[in-house]
Amino acid sequence: MFTIRFLPSGKSIKIDRPISILEAARLAGVQLDSLCGGRQRCGKCKVILKGHLPPLSPPDDVERKLLGDRLISEGYRLACNTIAQGSLAVLVPEQSRSKAQIILTSTQQLPPPNSLRPPLFVYAVSVPSPTISDPVADRERLISALEKEHGLRRLHTDPYVVRDIPHVLRSKQGPVRVLVRGATEVVGLTEEREDGPYGVAIDVGTTTVVAYLVDLLKARILSTKSSMNPQIPYGDDIITRISFCQQTEGGLQKLHSSLISCANSLITEACNDIGISHEEVMEVSVVGNTAMHHFFLGINPQFLSFAPYAPAISSAQEYKARDVGLKVAPSGYVYFLPVKAGFVGSDAVACVLSTRLHRSRLRSLVIDIGTNGEIAMGDKNRIMCCSTAAGPAFEGGHIKWGMRAASGAINQVRIDPTTLEVGLKTIHNRPPIGICGSGLISAVAELIRTGCILQRGNFNHSIKSSRLRDGEDGDEFVLSWKDENPTGHDIVITQKDIAELQMAKGAIRAGISIMMESFGPEIRRIYLAGAGGNFIDSFDAQLIDLIPSPPNCQIIACGNAAGHGACLALVDMKKRREAQRIAGSMEYIELASSTRFQDLFVSHMFFSKAIDS
Amino acid sequence: MFTIRFLPSGKSIKIDRPISILEAARLAGVQLDSLCGGRQRCGKCKVILKGHLPPLSPPDDVERKLLGDRLISEGYRLACNTIAQGSLAVLVPEQSRSKAQIILTSTQQLPPPNSLRPPLFVYAVSVPSPTISDPVADRERLISALEKEHGLRRLHTDPYVVRDIPHVLRSKQGPVRVLVRGATEVVGLTEEREDGPYGVAIDVGTTTVVAYLVDLLKARILSTKSSMNPQIPYGDDIITRISFCQQTEGGLQKLHSSLISCANSLITEACNDIGISHEEVMEVSVVGNTAMHHFFLGINPQFLSFAPYAPAISSAQEYKARDVGLKVAPSGYVYFLPVKAGFVGSDAVACVLSTRLHRSRLRSLVIDIGTNGEIAMGDKNRIMCCSTAAGPAFEGGHIKWGMRAASGAINQVRIDPTTLEVGLKTIHNRPPIGICGSGLISAVAELIRTGCILQRGNFNHSIKSSRLRDGEDGDEFVLSWKDENPTGHDIVITQKDIAELQMAKGAIRAGISIMMESFGPEIRRIYLAGAGGNFIDSFDAQLIDLIPSPPNCQIIACGNAAGHGACLALVDMKKRREAQRIAGSMEYIELASSTRFQDLFVSHMFFSKAIDS
Repeated sequence: MFTIRFLPSGKSIKIDRPISILEAARLAGVQLDSLCGGRQRCGKCKVILKGHLPPLSPPDDVERKLLGDRLISEGYRLACNTIAQGSLAVLVPEQSRSKAQIILTSTQQLPPPNSLRPPLFVYAVSVPSPTISDPVADRERLISALEKEHGLRRLHTDPYVVRDIPHVLRSKQGPVRVLVRGATEVVGLTEEREDGPYGVAIDVGTTTVVAYLVDLLKARILSTKSSMNPQIPYGDDIITRISFCQQTEGGLQKLHSSLISCANSLITEACNDIGISHEEVMEVSVVGNTAMHHFFLGINPQFLSFAPYAPAISSAQEYKARDVGLKVAPSGYVYFLPVKAGFVGSDAVACVLSTRLHRSRLRSLVIDIGTNGEIAMGDKNRIMCCSTAAGPAFEGGHIKWGMRAASGAINQVRIDPTTLEVGLKTIHNRPPIGICGSGLISAVAELIRTGCILQRGNFNHSIKSSRLRDGEDGDEFVLSWKDENPTGHDIVITQKDIAELQMAKGAIRAGISIMMESFGPEIRRIYLAGAGGNFIDSFDAQLIDLIPSPPNCQIIACGNAAGHGACLALVDMKKRREAQRIAGSMEYIELASSTRFQDLFVSHMFFSKAIDS
Repeated sequence: MFTIRFLPSGKSIKIDRPISILEAARLAGVQLDSLCGGRQRCGKCKVILKGHLPPLSPPDDVERKLLGDRLISEGYRLACNTIAQGSLAVLVPEQSRSKAQIILTSTQQLPPPNSLRPPLFVYAVSVPSPTISDPVADRERLISALEKEHGLRRLHTDPYVVRDIPHVLRSKQGPVRVLVRGATEVVGLTEEREDGPYGVAIDVGTTTVVAYLVDLLKARILSTKSSMNPQIPYGDDIITRISFCQQTEGGLQKLHSSLISCANSLITEACNDIGISHEEVMEVSVVGNTAMHHFFLGINPQFLSFAPYAPAISSAQEYKARDVGLKVAPSGYVYFLPVKAGFVGSDAVACVLSTRLHRSRLRSLVIDIGTNGEIAMGDKNRIMCCSTAAGPAFEGGHIKWGMRAASGAINQVRIDPTTLEVGLKTIHNRPPIGICGSGLISAVAELIRTGCILQRGNFNHSIKSSRLRDGEDGDEFVLSWKDENPTGHDIVITQKDIAELQMAKGAIRAGISIMMESFGPEIRRIYLAGAGGNFIDSFDAQLIDLIPSPPNCQIIACGNAAGHGACLALVDMKKRREAQRIAGSMEYIELASSTRFQDLFVSHMFFSKAIDS
């Protein structure tokens, strides 16, 4: 038995077996960042071990590469790769602590409640007591009172609700409040209270999972929680996870249950936020790409990985939440928005729903910027959609100093064209500890403006500045000197980071070009969606050629439109029908087998607005 | 660590803690009889311990009373009351081995399949493969094929079935066989085969649980399994179990889950019988008295125990079987027949359904002879019903040599009026090891005919015979001498046994009288129902005044009519509607608060056809 103690929090844990520092941190409740889930790939879980140390697994080549010789000489280790066998103290530096992601919801208000048709209503009824001459059953008295007072006929009752009826009818003075769903089923008996019933909308991304807790009748978002997708240890992208699922005994079950646990944790966190029980959540809506949709439902998505990429199911589904393992009200429902195709999921449908493309007179474009970049273009007459594998760069993955859009993330960069001095903006104005997706776009745009990056993406060696230097991973540009930030290190953008961005934006931009070749060049509105969409500067996005620059075009950062669409479908049954119509009528373009897409992808990897090399 | 070895089976088990012989027998898989569930009450779990013995808990007063000095001197112990702490061998005598109960089904054929509307149908469909130009989802292709080929519209799909669709569509050559329930929901994809889908009808009695495995489309009973109700350790009767439930933390959960486990075991046993998996059972129907109905559903039946005895729910319910914990096909359904009142359950409704009282021109009477004696009387114009607490005597409970209707149970007795010599018939013509309900009725009837029992139920001391003697529990009559049976003991009927029978038959007979006072004395048919109903001789039943003797009345032993009614509702949706109509229209007579019933009960405890004392 030995003790691992984490500083500065002082939390510690007693252990009786060799254990990685990352696992020990989790057990001790210490928030330690990890994008790759402990697979020695992201290099985010840096910790400092100093002083007299017990026997430890030595750093291997992978760790040496991720940390670099200097950090190793300073006592840095990757928590995931360091197996402790004796007591020690671990210092968790500021940049390794995981932060709450910022999901802007301010621009995502829901419509006024009186315009909505919510999935359930609350009815107050007076239920007479049974008598010896007429000992009618409790449920039957409740049901006939609902029919008599509110005209509700042929109501079903969930078996879990039936268990509650006898004592609720006898413990209440006066009328009973009954939750009726869709005018067909009694799903709950509630306390007399002002707020609720509640619902949760869940947006399941390949990299990030976000949950919105909503007051169903007031149509107000009350709390937003997010976390990394716990499937990341099984693969960064969808295809890797599908292979894992096929090659590993019980793989599907692992991927399914990790996602469900994650959803349940987020629901509980959000409920704790406003002081309610998860059993007060009566309705859940879920959006995600098709693979996430299938994993969430426990369906093996194996046939998504080869032609013709047919999903197992595409229409919207409504199930009891308990049937997929969600821990909400036992009688609650979960609604899955429809998916379009193997690689255009319900998240894309929800983006259209949120941005109202299907009702717009103006030709519009919606881009969901995430690990899977879904794109939809069109207007009320016709919508086309496609999906591109952008990779995790926009969510901080595969980027040396990358992080999610959380406190301390650099999200805007200005570079003086003369002096190359750097001005930074960070989320919550905290000292910088890393770079989020919008920060990366902003930095690269500024480096292009100042001539530091050339068309092919390489650094311009003719520029002389102490910031532009030869680093451990090749050329790099220093955004923040180590004495300007709490990490103790220079925060840099490397040549490799730029290449990751080029791949990501090239894929999305090529998808847009394919659309424009079908529709013509006119676009009147571009919606930038995605968890980080709100932070992206439209000029920067156009400068790096992530999006086109058509004339008379308005660019709108609309935040997490997929999540917002899930919220709309959560509170309004009319939106659910619209979602089904959108999924049915959108035209899907398959890019996986398109050589035209491949050509466009290669050409859009360059920065056409940069100076030529 | 020590070993307990059971003879004659030779099964043994290693144990590392003090343990009762009864528990050890269960762990070793040795069938040891126990009506009371190990509460030192029934005295059925007699075992013999001989030779050099390790330290054992000594017999206490209760055990001494149940066994008697002679048995104790012969090395007998009650397995439930004997705690072993070291290795020993335990001889299980023939009469202590639990036997499979005989549930006659020969007279309970189901109607011809072409007259039924089964809950589900099998459809064969050819589902086209997806193509790259039209990659429609698997479920959607299946659903449109079902619509195109069979006109089935708006089909739902169970989430568990959706998980199977992708590989079934791709692994099958030719058409897929689809199970569609109620023309609204796809509940399964099956192999090409001649038999099935299957269903199970469950009759939950206070003392006995019976399950019938049925081919749903052929309407044939394929296997019948029964067991003691596992709730018995928590109380012999309903009221005791309800008190347990109220007084014990987690009591409801215990009573609920023990019943569900029991049902699941019976389902699995029946499936093993015919070599199918329990996952091929698509539909379950359940009947039981109202308390059992509530326990099965996980509803606290606390309000059944006091006026006005209102049930929590009375109408028929259809749930996913998984929602009550039944282990059948994951998408399967369970249908609960409607209950009438707090003490007239769905078993009574099922008895009416089975005997067709509600369609009969002739005034008829149905008596369900069990721990709760339900009685219905009437014809197609009007039916009345009531319920009486008969106690477990008819099922072998509280009777010294009582046992269920299983192999070796004495079920018919003839006594020579001159010599008092006894002739016995046993189930399966096996050597006698105990007395079942019909045997008890037959024996008492013969003892009345021969003048051995007087009107008040006491033995006639003026008769001199070695069979009529003073036993350990007072007067007793020897049915089988110890050298005529394998138990090693005289099998007797005691004065106390007769008193138990008087209570049981008095309650039922009083209920019948109450009915006749409303309807008039005319009865043209009497149905004797109950697990042992088939064995009861109608003359014996009339002689002991269990049932009346109206003129021109046909008496029909109809076996387990409640179970048969459950089978009918299982295979025929029309019967489910009839059941709901029966429950709605039957008139219920509350006996619990009736002083008239109390008076009748006392007078019917006597044997009016016996000679006066």
